[in-house]
Amino acid sequence: MTVDNAGARIRRSVGWANMIICGIDPGIAIVGFGFIEKQGVKQRHLRHGVIRTPSGLALEARLLQIHNDLNELLDMYNPQALAVEELFFNTNVTTGIGVAHARGVILLTATERGIPVFSYSPQQVKLAVAGYGKAEKQQVMKMTRMLLNLPHMPRPDDAADALAIALCHAQTNQKVIGNN
Amino acid sequence: MTVDNAGARIRRSVGWANMIICGIDPGIAIVGFGFIEKQGVKQRHLRHGVIRTPSGLALEARLLQIHNDLNELLDMYNPQALAVEELFFNTNVTTGIGVAHARGVILLTATERGIPVFSYSPQQVKLAVAGYGKAEKQQVMKMTRMLLNLPHMPRPDDAADALAIALCHAQTNQKVIGNN
Repeated sequence: MTVDNAGARIRRSVGWANMIICGIDPGIAIVGFGFIEKQGVKQRHLRHGVIRTPSGLALEARLLQIHNDLNELLDMYNPQALAVEELFFNTNVTTGIGVAHARGVILLTATERGIPVFSYSPQQVKLAVAGYGKAEKQQVMKMTRMLLNLPHMPRPDDAADALAIALCHAQTNQKVIGNN
Repeated sequence: MTVDNAGARIRRSVGWANMIICGIDPGIAIVGFGFIEKQGVKQRHLRHGVIRTPSGLALEARLLQIHNDLNELLDMYNPQALAVEELFFNTNVTTGIGVAHARGVILLTATERGIPVFSYSPQQVKLAVAGYGKAEKQQVMKMTRMLLNLPHMPRPDDAADALAIALCHAQTNQKVIGNN
């Protein structure tokens, strides 16, 4: 598996878990992931990192790698929910097509395993994590680090975003993903 | 399986086959499919139809249905290639996001089974089937019907488009799908 594993911590006691949440920042070249454990009003960091796919690979081969690597992670952490960011195509439509392909595969991978999927807008993530829907990216990252008691800023950004999405799911009312 | 099966013909002799091609017109609500058998310069119609997913279903459940139904069809016809149309987001970006999710799942479904995937632009399909890259839709449908010796126009349009994409793969040089 091509996974950067910055700050990985092995989950020590399964019995301790209240709910494990997987946050995903979708992409074709880089998929950010973050696993956290929610216990009441507290959250514990389990692991974050990214799945990287080689740029020389055909689109369908990259999708297969994302599917396989994500399945390996889901096997390992067995989350009860997968939270993923909604897509908005404001700027780069061409990049967005690839991201949407990957997002489709990610939703399928979770759903095949019976893991419920939840979708959040960037504003919902900012509001839940930093308390303000128009918060700066740096502010969201600082709060993510603080809420999860991390010794350093989570890296790379895609993994930090994935942790923030997982935190958003832990902290907000759950909204089932819509039809687009 | 929620499959309209207009003009289905059971494949009678596997040994006769030279190459079976599956054409796909991707979508979230309707996925068109068409199976043809290429033998030298000739093509034989096997089956066309659509996978329909209920509009009330969540996006991820629709993706799972597309994955399962397509797998069932691929089990049945065991094609050596899957041809699919490229995506262009010129008009409706929101619809396009859903289609790209579905297209990602379709590419994954084929690739998981080791079926090579080929991507064609609408212009390539028109050129290959009607001999003219700017041919009208009706002209492409007429030629699809003629080339496959069909008693009627294939219906619905999504299934006809899928047959045209399969014909395009049968008739043109093969171009492996790109990275976006």
